[in-house]
Amino acid sequence: MNLLQQIEAIVGANGLLQGEAVTARPNLSMGLGSCPAQAIVRPANTAELAEVMKLCHQHRQPVVAMGGLTGLVSGTACEPEHLGISLERMRNIEAIDEIAGTMTVEAGVVLETAQQAAKQHGWQLAMDWGARGSAQIGGALATNAGGNSVVRYGMAREQVLGIEAVLADGTVVTSLNEMLKNNTGYDLKQLFIGSEGTLGIITRAVLRLRPACDAVQTAVIAVDNFDHVGQILRQLGSSLEGKLSAFEVMWSSFTRLLIDDTGRHQKLFDDPHPYAILVESAGVDQAREAAHFEAVLGELLEQQLASDILIAQSSQQAAQIWAMRDDIEGMVHALFPPAAFDVSLPIRDMERYIQAVERRLTELQPQGRLLAFGHLGDSNIHLVFGPTENKPEVEEVVYSELVPFNGAISAEHGIGLDKRVYLHHSRSEIEIALMKSIKQAIDPHNLLNPDKIFL
Amino acid sequence: MNLLQQIEAIVGANGLLQGEAVTARPNLSMGLGSCPAQAIVRPANTAELAEVMKLCHQHRQPVVAMGGLTGLVSGTACEPEHLGISLERMRNIEAIDEIAGTMTVEAGVVLETAQQAAKQHGWQLAMDWGARGSAQIGGALATNAGGNSVVRYGMAREQVLGIEAVLADGTVVTSLNEMLKNNTGYDLKQLFIGSEGTLGIITRAVLRLRPACDAVQTAVIAVDNFDHVGQILRQLGSSLEGKLSAFEVMWSSFTRLLIDDTGRHQKLFDDPHPYAILVESAGVDQAREAAHFEAVLGELLEQQLASDILIAQSSQQAAQIWAMRDDIEGMVHALFPPAAFDVSLPIRDMERYIQAVERRLTELQPQGRLLAFGHLGDSNIHLVFGPTENKPEVEEVVYSELVPFNGAISAEHGIGLDKRVYLHHSRSEIEIALMKSIKQAIDPHNLLNPDKIFL
Ligand SMILES: Cc1cc2nc3c(=O)[nH]c(=O)nc-3n(C[C@H](O)[C@H](O)[C@H](O)COP(=O)(O)OP(=O)(O)OC[C@H]3O[C@@H](n4cnc5c(N)ncnc54)[C@H](O)[C@@H]3O)c2cc1C
Ligand SMILES: Cc1cc2nc3c(=O)[nH]c(=O)nc-3n(C[C@H](O)[C@H](O)[C@H](O)COP(=O)(O)OP(=O)(O)OC[C@H]3O[C@@H](n4cnc5c(N)ncnc54)[C@H](O)[C@@H]3O)c2cc1C
Repeated sequence: MNLLQQIEAIVGANGLLQGEAVTARPNLSMGLGSCPAQAIVRPANTAELAEVMKLCHQHRQPVVAMGGLTGLVSGTACEPEHLGISLERMRNIEAIDEIAGTMTVEAGVVLETAQQAAKQHGWQLAMDWGARGSAQIGGALATNAGGNSVVRYGMAREQVLGIEAVLADGTVVTSLNEMLKNNTGYDLKQLFIGSEGTLGIITRAVLRLRPACDAVQTAVIAVDNFDHVGQILRQLGSSLEGKLSAFEVMWSSFTRLLIDDTGRHQKLFDDPHPYAILVESAGVDQAREAAHFEAVLGELLEQQLASDILIAQSSQQAAQIWAMRDDIEGMVHALFPPAAFDVSLPIRDMERYIQAVERRLTELQPQGRLLAFGHLGDSNIHLVFGPTENKPEVEEVVYSELVPFNGAISAEHGIGLDKRVYLHHSRSEIEIALMKSIKQAIDPHNLLNPDKIFL
Repeated sequence: MNLLQQIEAIVGANGLLQGEAVTARPNLSMGLGSCPAQAIVRPANTAELAEVMKLCHQHRQPVVAMGGLTGLVSGTACEPEHLGISLERMRNIEAIDEIAGTMTVEAGVVLETAQQAAKQHGWQLAMDWGARGSAQIGGALATNAGGNSVVRYGMAREQVLGIEAVLADGTVVTSLNEMLKNNTGYDLKQLFIGSEGTLGIITRAVLRLRPACDAVQTAVIAVDNFDHVGQILRQLGSSLEGKLSAFEVMWSSFTRLLIDDTGRHQKLFDDPHPYAILVESAGVDQAREAAHFEAVLGELLEQQLASDILIAQSSQQAAQIWAMRDDIEGMVHALFPPAAFDVSLPIRDMERYIQAVERRLTELQPQGRLLAFGHLGDSNIHLVFGPTENKPEVEEVVYSELVPFNGAISAEHGIGLDKRVYLHHSRSEIEIALMKSIKQAIDPHNLLNPDKIFL
């Protein structure tokens, strides 16, 4: 029997896709590409995957873990010699502890399904982003995804208590800790979170849930001075007593395009302002929350930190404001072809950084336009530049200008294949060498998602 | 020149302690032991330490990192052939970002000094425990310490954004990230947090600060039924909107000893109750906080989850209540010689676990008494048993009874030397093998805190 036949004997016919069943599938997010892998294995459980990996190890067969294929850095890109490993059949929610607020899931559970299960039990899963309908828990953890409400609850990493993963040689590492505190030796789950499938295939996880907070308040704050943006972040962090759940800054480059130039969204304020901050707080009592929110924002006007404030008067109005913040389509359309970035750097340096990037880019490609917006509360900004003549040239500017500020070329999305050549802008040779020695120790034959993150 | 002379040439006479200067120092916490190491090196900065480690690497010289010597598992225990590396001269607070709430410190900074610096800038460092006056930031991170307010802010791990560490061969890994989000490859700092000095010597760190919350409310809740304890935890987690900053349960075994039997503390309630929960909330506005706290606790009485409630009417009264919770001296005195434990397990299993332990211990050592109390909000309980006839026998019972519940033999304090033989009760052979392969990859000659955690 050849390797695929041996694998089929383990996972059954339904567990092994070949030929057209493979090429009919996309290889990347947004349905891009046709999967070139020689086959896709769909194990039904951890034990099957462990057997499959033992065989792959014997045959030195490289594999690429696949979640919902929503990752934005080509982390699931396959070569023809690769085997895809899809967790799509492992989608059980195994347990929910209603008192402690923990949920044990198989890695193939779709984010939205996990969110709903948490909600049904009176909790929330504090992981949320646009791809919630397809992204899987395994992919979310493998990329240490961010998304909404990181400012309050942290990245995916902070929503995980325990992990089970299968190593390159088929070893099953079961570390399904359920406790907030566990200092019994090295915290192995950290290896698998954010390593993009290069150190192990995540098969199960214990997630930490958060109390539901449905009394949401939304506002936009107009600000004329970047120093005030920082001061407002600090002040709301304190006066909202930890209930600040979004702090999204839109530079005027962004609002001008989406409101004034394209007319896609309604004017927020009578006068133009250099910065508009979308803020949200979430508590449990609607009336108390509204009163507190209003009082706290009122102080910003009194202190002249804010120039104007628009408090959403309905959830519909809040949704309209968010629709502008999330109008990727509007940006892509207006700046086609665009180059989009997800970087982070200290807040104190953001204005200088953006100005430096803008200066260099408009010199290089004078017809282009640079938009800035993002999760400023998390030190994370998104830049969109377009129309782009030469994408690598734009990338080089955006990433190299981060170096003086110790910024990160990827705040949320990871490195995958797309940012591999730029990794040195954010991490030193020594750091990359240490990453490689960990990879070498855990996956010595380079079988797990080979050549992603670094070469 | 021999090794010590070469080291002296790097760090100067003041940087190298020998002879009586070494033996006059304790080797462990509580001033225990006389340090048997051949010398203690006190580098003035990272560069000096890197040079020293290069030499140690050449000479295959094992070293033991030393912080404030407050660790509770003999993690700093030296052998005569070891060199101690003390970070005590590296105590600069290098930077504080008042807007983002970050603080960059050298690892030798004492916890209390760092707390005060944060406070002076209007922030708080959410790491606090009894040893604050001696423990160092390096030791706190190396042990992933817990302490007060973990229920709100998490362990030391969650207070760190970046780390610099010196590896066994003198390589300096500088990962001084300041951002909440940074997904550029493996998150290397996780290696050094909680690994008790076995993978690198932490030299600097970027700490994440939290908004100051000085409007503190304190109460004790009397409960007659363990299920209600869990329900109250869940309910306060929600109704206090994230401001719950302590949830400490004292079983009646604990209150009976410290109130009734020893008379060291005042009665809390007229009638005895099986559980007393010390709860605390912390916000920013004293009056609003008090009203909210009282309302939320009132609901617990109405719902008959709580049988009685005592709200501290002054900070003095709150301090009295905490003094009972923290009365280690009272326990040690009454149960001398005691055996004390720091375990964690799912809340749903705690009663069954404690009963199983009590049954077996009182069979083995019928004159002994078992007290239970702890950070229940973190799944962490402390057990104290005494008078103890045979400590290893007690340890074996306490740790082995955790196995059916997937509990942790160390919630907070780590493994060090003292719990090494029990590690297998909490971690599988596969997990320990993976830990060893990481150790082997990063410290192949076993020079950094050899033989701690595992052999
Ligand atoms: C519309 C949209 C919005 C998005 N918004 C955000 C956002 O706000 N914040 C953010 O951080 N990200 C965002 N993302 C990207 C984000 O990375 C993904 O949505 C998600 O984290 C990946 O999940 P996935 O299951 O689709 O993984 P995939 O795309 O299938 O895989 C991603 C990577 O993880 C690996 N992987 C997948 N499953 C496993 C597993 N079980 N074990 C080990 N490795 C595995 C893959 O090999 C690959 O390297 C967005 C994506 C889209 C399309
Ligand atoms: C009274 C008291 C109360 C305590 N309360 C708590 C509590 O509530 N919660 C809790 O979690 N812990 C508690 N502890 C123990 C806790 O582990 C320590 O206080 C602290 O975390 C250790 O800091 P230290 O600087 O004293 O480290 P040390 O004791 O000097 O060292 C501890 C370990 O870390 C290593 N280490 C030290 N510095 C470095 C460095 N720079 N780089 C690498 N490794 C290093 C050592 O080799 C050793 O293995 C308490 C201790 C005492 C004495």
